[in-house]
Parts: sequence; structure tokens; C-alpha cells
Amino acid sequence: MIHFDSDYLEGAHPEILRRLMETNMEKTSGYGTDIYCEEARKKIRKVCNCPEAEVFFLMGGTQTNATVIDAMLSRTEGVIAADSGHISIHEAGAIEASGHKVLALPHENGKLSASAIEKYIENFYDDGNHEHMVSPGMVYISHPTEYGTLYTKKELEEIRIVCHRHEIPLYLDGARLGYALVAKNTDITLEVITSNCDAFYIGGTKVGALFGEAVVFTKPNKIKHFLSIVKQHGALLAKGRLLGIQFDTLFDNNLYFEISKNAIEMADKLKKIFEEKGYKFFLKTPTNQQFIILENEKMKQLSEKVTFSFWETLDENHTVVRFATSWATNEEDVEKLRQIL
Amino acid sequence: MIHFDSDYLEGAHPEILRRLMETNMEKTSGYGTDIYCEEARKKIRKVCNCPEAEVFFLMGGTQTNATVIDAMLSRTEGVIAADSGHISIHEAGAIEASGHKVLALPHENGKLSASAIEKYIENFYDDGNHEHMVSPGMVYISHPTEYGTLYTKKELEEIRIVCHRHEIPLYLDGARLGYALVAKNTDITLEVITSNCDAFYIGGTKVGALFGEAVVFTKPNKIKHFLSIVKQHGALLAKGRLLGIQFDTLFDNNLYFEISKNAIEMADKLKKIFEEKGYKFFLKTPTNQQFIILENEKMKQLSEKVTFSFWETLDENHTVVRFATSWATNEEDVEKLRQIL
Amino acid sequence: MIHFDSDYLEGAHPEILRRLMETNMEKTSGYGTDIYCEEARKKIRKVCNCPEAEVFFLMGGTQTNATVIDAMLSRTEGVIAADSGHISIHEAGAIEASGHKVLALPHENGKLSASAIEKYIENFYDDGNHEHMVSPGMVYISHPTEYGTLYTKKELEEIRIVCHRHEIPLYLDGARLGYALVAKNTDITLEVITSNCDAFYIGGTKVGALFGEAVVFTKPNKIKHFLSIVKQHGALLAKGRLLGIQFDTLFDNNLYFEISKNAIEMADKLKKIFEEKGYKFFLKTPTNQQFIILENEKMKQLSEKVTFSFWETLDENHTVVRFATSWATNEEDVEKLRQIL
Amino acid sequence: MIHFDSDYLEGAHPEILRRLMETNMEKTSGYGTDIYCEEARKKIRKVCNCPEAEVFFLMGGTQTNATVIDAMLSRTEGVIAADSGHISIHEAGAIEASGHKVLALPHENGKLSASAIEKYIENFYDDGNHEHMVSPGMVYISHPTEYGTLYTKKELEEIRIVCHRHEIPLYLDGARLGYALVAKNTDITLEVITSNCDAFYIGGTKVGALFGEAVVFTKPNKIKHFLSIVKQHGALLAKGRLLGIQFDTLFDNNLYFEISKNAIEMADKLKKIFEEKGYKFFLKTPTNQQFIILENEKMKQLSEKVTFSFWETLDENHTVVRFATSWATNEEDVEKLRQIL
Repeated sequence: MIHFDSDYLEGAHPEILRRLMETNMEKTSGYGTDIYCEEARKKIRKVCNCPEAEVFFLMGGTQTNATVIDAMLSRTEGVIAADSGHISIHEAGAIEASGHKVLALPHENGKLSASAIEKYIENFYDDGNHEHMVSPGMVYISHPTEYGTLYTKKELEEIRIVCHRHEIPLYLDGARLGYALVAKNTDITLEVITSNCDAFYIGGTKVGALFGEAVVFTKPNKIKHFLSIVKQHGALLAKGRLLGIQFDTLFDNNLYFEISKNAIEMADKLKKIFEEKGYKFFLKTPTNQQFIILENEKMKQLSEKVTFSFWETLDENHTVVRFATSWATNEEDVEKLRQIL
Repeated sequence: MIHFDSDYLEGAHPEILRRLMETNMEKTSGYGTDIYCEEARKKIRKVCNCPEAEVFFLMGGTQTNATVIDAMLSRTEGVIAADSGHISIHEAGAIEASGHKVLALPHENGKLSASAIEKYIENFYDDGNHEHMVSPGMVYISHPTEYGTLYTKKELEEIRIVCHRHEIPLYLDGARLGYALVAKNTDITLEVITSNCDAFYIGGTKVGALFGEAVVFTKPNKIKHFLSIVKQHGALLAKGRLLGIQFDTLFDNNLYFEISKNAIEMADKLKKIFEEKGYKFFLKTPTNQQFIILENEKMKQLSEKVTFSFWETLDENHTVVRFATSWATNEEDVEKLRQIL
Repeated sequence: MIHFDSDYLEGAHPEILRRLMETNMEKTSGYGTDIYCEEARKKIRKVCNCPEAEVFFLMGGTQTNATVIDAMLSRTEGVIAADSGHISIHEAGAIEASGHKVLALPHENGKLSASAIEKYIENFYDDGNHEHMVSPGMVYISHPTEYGTLYTKKELEEIRIVCHRHEIPLYLDGARLGYALVAKNTDITLEVITSNCDAFYIGGTKVGALFGEAVVFTKPNKIKHFLSIVKQHGALLAKGRLLGIQFDTLFDNNLYFEISKNAIEMADKLKKIFEEKGYKFFLKTPTNQQFIILENEKMKQLSEKVTFSFWETLDENHTVVRFATSWATNEEDVEKLRQIL
Repeated sequence: MIHFDSDYLEGAHPEILRRLMETNMEKTSGYGTDIYCEEARKKIRKVCNCPEAEVFFLMGGTQTNATVIDAMLSRTEGVIAADSGHISIHEAGAIEASGHKVLALPHENGKLSASAIEKYIENFYDDGNHEHMVSPGMVYISHPTEYGTLYTKKELEEIRIVCHRHEIPLYLDGARLGYALVAKNTDITLEVITSNCDAFYIGGTKVGALFGEAVVFTKPNKIKHFLSIVKQHGALLAKGRLLGIQFDTLFDNNLYFEISKNAIEMADKLKKIFEEKGYKFFLKTPTNQQFIILENEKMKQLSEKVTFSFWETLDENHTVVRFATSWATNEEDVEKLRQIL
């Protein structure tokens, strides 16, 4: 059996484990106050070219989204997101559990457009009853999106302009950010993200870490008592250095970018194989997730030899499935897949 | 200036005020334990033909929806509703503030269909990741809907069948229930509602009371500690008898139904006038709300002499507006409107 | 049977009912935008000598406390209160339901002292781990307290000084405020409250209204979107004018103060009777609530002829009970009580 | 500098790191569905002698408490805890953030007594107004307590009896459970805990793991949709196997118990040293935390060479401090401490 069902099937990049070993018996203070966290923060500020950025380390994506969104919204505000966004669907109501409505707009291949956001906000304020409605308090986008697609620099800037016009912050979910940054033909860099977003997170769980997400607030002193909010959300790791060591390693010598490239290369091979074999794409993307349309019979056969994930039912006889590569995908498995297909 | 902007412009039916006067200096125990509440409960159980029903009195619609839905859902469940439903839009996030997601489905003239609900629930359970999603824990419908439309008995039964198949309760928001029950050609009675819904409320605020909504749970002992939940939601009126007296009056001698008829009769006249004068309907409904398409210039002129409410922008030059009648609308005002139009 | 169990046994002062009748068929806009609310706001601003005050009308005490406290706290802050405070005990967890901890300090006859508050806050900030704790975000006091006792002007000023030193607001629960303001030998007026508190509410439910509490924010523009917060808490009355008319009446010609005096006079008579008859006081207070120690056997006898409320068990054979007077208590009932005792 | 400030200063037991290395590149399914989690569950069920137990793995203590308590309480229930309990003080309001009140009772050296719990519950139900109060919905105890003290089997049984009489569950926070189980003269084993508690957690973070807590529900099928609740709390680790591997290692060959013993032995040495040197104990405990009274001047001196934690101010000149040992404390450091003292 070979596995393409997700990008968090393995543990961590070996260098991370090596450093966890190396530092294991050191004694450090807890909750992110240690030198490894501090070192990782420095490196992230540098790679973002944002010396004043505030950086925090949390454990997982849902936790990070729930904590950051809760911190950024007042209690009568909601968060605008694509209806395909992770917070809209796959977080078991974590956003609502902290009291906030997700204001879901229709997605276009996983993306939100500046004009759709603008129109939503304008309609909201046109409504004489808007005090009886949840006001749009921030915008959430994913990059890459849940569909593996990417924003362009121009699109991101347009969204930022709309947000700033209406004085609401822009937050970018970077669960798979590495795979976006090293994709071909993208003009979005960490610096571009930093200068357009008020907050974002750099995903570790899906890009080389055992677990962990690095939250970056690009404008200092905006969120008061964020550490207490993190603690209240149960998201403050006692041995915070575990996160510091991981991100310090990932941002040492460009490791984060280097290992991300593997996912893109393997995805390119995958795409080529699917094309050669005549498979139909539901969506061919520049990142590590590819969406294929399978006949149900074929799907059943394939699933005996390879894992992939169910995406959605297309029609009675066809299903959309997702194949994901990662920093850890190896050529051998891709080759096996070719033979199976 | 004449007023057709809403159905809560006046105080209460005079008979209610008379009884409040009459009983004003009596001393009774608080929080709904008085004899007037008990008497009102008896009358409501009787008119619903449901001797075992549990009846509670709350103060307003948003409060009632937030309290009942919070009481009926577990913490990982959400409530299925039309995207035009009151809880989806106009309650300032009250449902989310108590931790629950509104699972909004596209409406058809304000209504949900059994098949759309069924499909949503089935898709939910088909998803291998459904434990990461908010599970459908109840269905919310409004009758009349926010668009003034009505379910048929058959439609209601079909929805109930889907709910029961999936073991989730059905809750009906009856903010304007009186106007539904006395509409022409409807086959939905209080008994039909009682036998199909697990909970519903009989609206007082918009149908003759100063304020107040009567919540009916049709199956006893389903909701534990509902009174504490009401108190926790700030929805427990100290002088509960004020609600008891109002509902006792409304359900004495069919007053609730009698006064509701006035709204329907006046709405019928309104419809005829708009037709005669050649106005375009966005939606002509069997209840007390009528939706008219106005040219923006015309709208401006009209609004100098008559109030109505903005509903939505149709296109650059046209707007949909709502005219509402109520138990208190008088013929004189309708006549004036005819002359203005 | 005569009744001294609470101060919300009757309806409203007759003048309020008269005005509700008089205005009943007028058509006004909803949600507190009508002229009666505006008139009541003006009168309250004037009697508080605070032209810039923001005034809102809500329906009941628990609702008001939950809404105001939720609006004033950030999400990691709690509210300091006496452990005997209404929010600490008798609101079914309404404060916690909106996510906030009540930081309960030991009371002295229902009161908090400035020094106890100061000590609590200083200890909090001394703790190296205070980011893991709920930070004190505001102070809640009741006046009169739940024990019927009163703060002095000096005590209130001392509390205000501590609050301001630590930059947290002071909020006063005035559910029975009328009875405090007209008590003998008090130096606390509405002006004193206004100049020392950031927010407070003037209780209507227990002082002459059918229902309703008037929230006063003494510094403008501190709370953003309060109306939406009120709506989200289910606390926004559709026919808001019902509150406006009541408070407009109560603050016309000093009615609020005049009717409050009756409660004090009747309580004075009560105290004298209990003294004459040799009853033991648990607490003799300057307001409308008196706390008497009864032998359990005596309590049983009494309760066949007069209602009062259980306060607490003193020892095996004795119980503390509360007798409450109100704006509506009449001499006749007091006389009857004398004969019964 | 030597360190005795907490029991989470180091990484993990080397065997855990070895196994994380060994399994690092394996591909497994996520969210706790892997074979390592399953293996760990089996071992825990066995060591608890409870084949029907349901076992879940979460990441940290605050997160675990917030999730489990939220899952076990209905919305109007609160959790009884010692006022010194972790949930009462040091979780930044995480319990209240999910809507629940902590019903704090005075502690005796960190412990709650069955009689105090019983009295609280009985008083609650004696109160005629208890529907306006937060009802006691479960009991939370810590073992060892935050003061390092231990319950006896008899005490635990008495608490369980009270809980069962009132039909509320008993939950035990075992953040440092290993150190309790191997303490001298204790009669509480995992089996005793399992047969007396409805739920508890076995702490990993402070006892040999990098992070992680194993939640055990001793009666199956009590909590519905716990996995969704975990996800909603942001507490579901994507690479769940990391927890499985750690607990599988800890419960292999009694490792959890073996390494716990080291903390006790080192604490015994510490106690002896403090005694010999004439230090005053605030509390001498059978587990890994010892509480010493230091003159403030002495405290200052000491803190230049050794870390410990501030516990509380005793008086103007004295402070209570805590020295903690752990599975990782080595004799060398203890020896150094002797010399410093």
C-alpha cells in the first residue's frame, strides 16, 4: 500500500528530531520564554523582513485559528471566509464555540475575491438593520487554499486594500504555507504576506514539524494579553521550547523552503502521470494537492493499493478524490503509483 | 404619515391592557409560578390539544430562539435553518454567542424543503471527516417565514419525517404565528404544528401583546432544567405574571385568532390596491407581509408619505420593499394608502 | 395571607399603567429609537447631572448585568464582586455563560472594601504567573447590597480611586437603587454615583415599573456597538417604547424618589414592630430589606399567615429570614403583621 | 545555576525520543486512529484493570481539563473544586470560557473533603431559589494536589459515595499522577482511581513525556461525540501517533512508575537536606513538591544560585517557595543544592 491521502502522515524532518535529541536534557523555562523560542522568533522576523513582528508558537491549525480569530474579533463581529475555508467546515464549530459567526462567502476554487468581500461589507452597511446583524470584523483566507490554489500578489493586495478601507484586519491561514511559497510562478513571498496581512501563521505540522504553527502579528501591540488568550484556549504548551526548537530548525539554512520544494516536485510528477494515463482533473493545482475525477469502480480498485482522500461526489458514477504530496514523499512511491495507474 | 413598516408599531390589544390594569395591585409570586401563567398554560395546552405539553413564557423572539436552541443542542451540534431565517441573519450572532453554528441552507421563498434537509444530513454522514464538522442537531423553520410564506401540512410532515429518521428535533419559530393560522387556504393548525414539531413558539409581540412569546415543548421531560437555562440567558421575567396575563387574554375566547384575521383582511386590501394601481410584486403572500418592487424614484416619493421597510436592492433602479399589516392596522390607513398610490 | 417576601409582588405604579394606556395605539419605531425613550434619556441625564451620559433600557437585572459586564470585559478579564453579590450566586451562571469568571471576594454585610479590592489586585500582579490567571477587569458592587446595606460616599470614592489607579471600570448594580437614594442618613446621590462609577443601572422592576432597568454609561464612547451586544444577549425589546414610557414616567416629577420613600417608611415601621415584639435582628438595615432571626418553630407558625423569604440557616434551631417592603407596601398590611407577631 | 522550579524543565525520557526516531518516517493515519494509540490504549486499560475504559490522548493539562469538564457538564452546571485547584486559578478562565462556573470550596492542604462537598450540595438543594443558581454538576480533585498532598483510599471512596448519592461524576486531575502512585505509604493505585472516578487523566507532560495527557473514562458510552468536542477545543493532534507512541512507551515495562520513583527519592533527599540545614517547612509532602519558608533576604541570596518557584507571601519578611523534583532530577544537582544551602 502506498499513501497519498494527506501531508501529515510522517513524523518530522530528521534534523528536527536530531535537535530535539541534542537538547533533550537541557533545563529551560516554560511557555515559550526559552532561548530556542527566542531564536526562532528572530529568524522568522528576519525571513519576513519585519523586525517588529510579534511571533507566537501554537500546536495545531484549528487551535491556532480559533485562538487568533477569538483574539482579533470583538464579541459582535464575525469573520468573513470562503465557504470552503477550513474554519467554515472542518473545525467542529471551534470558531462558534468561542462565540463568533463565520460569515461564509462562495469560493472560487477555494479563493475569495476582493470584490466579493467589498460587496458583502457594503451591503452590510447599507442595511438599515445592520446593528441586528453580525458585523464583518476580519477577513480569513487560506494560502494555499483548501483546494491547493494560490492567490496572486495583486489579488492579495486588492483584498488588503478592501480590508483597510473598512478598517478590518486580514488574517492568512498558512497551514501549508511552505508549499505555496516555493510553487512555480507565484509572486507571493513571506515579505509580501507580511506587508499585506495583519496576522498569519506559518504551518509546521504539514511542512516538516512534528506539530506546531508560528503565528505572526505584523503590527505590534494590536492584541492585548495574547498569551492569556492562548492559555485560555488550552493552546499554551508547557514545554514551549519544543516549538521553538522545531521552528528554529525549520528556519535555519532555509530548511523550510528546501523541504517544501520536494512536495512540489513530487506533485509535478504526479500531475504528469495522471495526464499520461488519461485521468481527468477536477482541479490541477500549483501546490501539493491534486484533485482527480475517478469512476467509482476505478476508485474502488485503486483504493486497494493506494490511499487518497475522498473530496466530493461529482455525480452518480464519479467521485472527486485528492492526492497529496509532502516534504516527505519519495520518488519510489510516486513510481509505484505510476505502475498502479 | 401612515405606517406599514412593521407589525410591532403599537402597544397591545386593549383587552390586554385592561387586564393588566385590573390585576395590577395583586401580589403574586415571581418567575412564572403565578396563577395567570398557569391559566395561560392550560389554555395553550388545550388549544394545541396536547395536555402533556410544557409551556414557558419568554420576552422576545431573539431571546426565545437563542434560549430554546441552546437548550436543545449539545455543544458540537448546529441548527439547520434557511439562509433567510431570522436566526441566520438578524439576531446579531445570538446563536453563535452561545456556541452553536447555524447551518444555513438556501431558501425557497423563505422555506426549507424536506429533501434539501435530507440531502444535507446524508452528505454530512457520508463525509469520512464528519467528526471534524458541526453535526446537524435540530431543524429550525419559521411559519410564516420571513418572506410571509407558509408551509403546507404535507411539507411540514415531510420535514418531520426527515427529522425523526435522523433523530433530531424540529423547532418552529412562530413570531407571527397568528397570521399563519388564520391565512386563507392553509391546512396548518396549532394541532398540526403540535403533532409535527418538538418545540415551537407562539408569538405575542407581533400579534397583540406588549411583548412575549409562548414556548411549547410538545414532548414532556425532554429538556432538563429549562428554567435555569432561561435564567442563564437573562430571559426569566421577574414579574412573570405579566406574560401569563397577556397569553391568558390572547387565548381567551379565541382573541389571538380573531385579531390575527384583521391583519390578513388588511393585507388582502393592500394586495388589491397594489394590483389595481399596477405595482409589481416581488412576492405576493397569504399572510401580513407583502413585497413590492419600486422604482427608486417612486420609492423616494412614497417614503415622504408612508413608511415601509427596505427589503433588498433588486437592480440599479429598483428596490424591493415590504409592507406589513397587523392586528392593529385600520381601514382608514389602508384607504389613505390607496389615495397616495 | 399578607406578603413581605419580595419587592416585586405587584405590577407597576398606576401612573405608569395610565401612560401605557394613553399611548397604546400610537405607532412608533422600535428598539429604543422612539421619542419616549429619548425623553426618558434626557430626564435621566438631567437627574444625574451628566449631559454626556449614554442611557440604554433593558428588561431585567440578570440580563442587564450579563450584558453590561460582557460589554465591559475583554475575554481574559473577570469581574471582582462580593461573594454575596447577585452575579456571584443568583444568576444561574449568566456571567460565566458569556465566558467571564466572577472573582468573588468575601463580603462584609454585602459590601466590598476598597482595601480588599486593592489587595486582591496587587496580589494578582505580584504573581509571576498572572498571565495564567483571570485578570481583574472591572469591579461590581450593588447599592443597596443584597443585604440591604449601603455604601457611604467616602467608601464609594475609595473604591473608585482603587479602580482608577488600576485602570479598571467600576459598575454599580442598582436593582433597588431608589430605596438607597431615599434612605435616611445616606450621602450617596445619583450625582455621586455618576461621578464615581463608569456604569450603573437604575432599577425599575423593583421600584415601580412593570419591568425595566436603565443602564447609564457615564463616559461616552467607551463601549462600542453596545446595541448589537444587547441584541446578541436577547435583551433588545422590540417595542422599546414600553421601557421609555416607564422611565419617562418614573423620572417625571420625582416619582421614582417619591414612591421609593414609601418602602423606607414601611421598613421603619417594620423594624419598630420587630423591636417592640422582641425579635432578634440578623441585620437591621437602612433600606427596604430587614433580616430577622426566627426560631424554626416560630417560623413555621408565622408562615401560615405571612410570606417572607428564607435567607440562610443560622443553626439547628434558628433561621434567618428576610422581610421586604416596596413602593407598593401599604400600612394596612404592616398593621396586620403587627397583630400577627 | 541549578533548577528546582518545576517538573517540566527537560524534554522527554530518552526511550520516548528513541521510539519517536525509530518510527519517524512511518506513515500512519491521523487524529488518534493509528496503531500506536491503539496499543497505548490497551496498555492503559490493562494497568487500570478496566477493559471497557475509553482512553483519549490530549496535549496539555489546561486543555484536558477544559475539554473534559465541558464534555461532562450540561450548560447550567458548574464544577466543584478546591479553591486552590488548577482549574480555579491557573487556567486563565478556560473553564469559564466554555461557559461553566468553578464552584470553589476552601481547600485543606489542597484537598477537598467528602463532608465539605456533601454540605455544599445539600445547601444548594435546600435553597428554594436553586434554579437561579449554578448547580453542582461534577467534582474535580487533583491527585497529587497542587500542594503535593495525597488523598487516601478512604477519602477518595467517601468522595465517590457523595458524588454517586447526588448522581454527579467524579473527575481526577492527574497531571502529576505518577508521583502520587509511587509515593510511600499511599494506598491509592490506578485500580483504586479507576474504580472510584468516572474520569481522570494520567499526566505525561510532567512525568516523562514531551507533552501529553491520557484521559480515561471508566464507564463507556457516557460522553457522546467526545472526539468532536476535543476537535472543537482545538485539542485534537493531527499526528496523534506522537501521543500514542509516548504513552505506549511510558506504559511499557512499568516505565511510568519506574521514572516516577526518581522524583520521590530526590524529594526525600531534598526534605532531609532542608531539615538538616534547619529550614522551616510550610508543607512537607509525600510527593515531588516541597514547600519551604524562606526569609526574604535568604530567598534573594539563594535565587542567585538555584531556581525555585514563588508560592505565596507568608508575612512581611517571609515567603513560601516551592522546590520541585521530577523523573529527570539528578543526584548531582541535589548535592549541589546541599552545598548551597
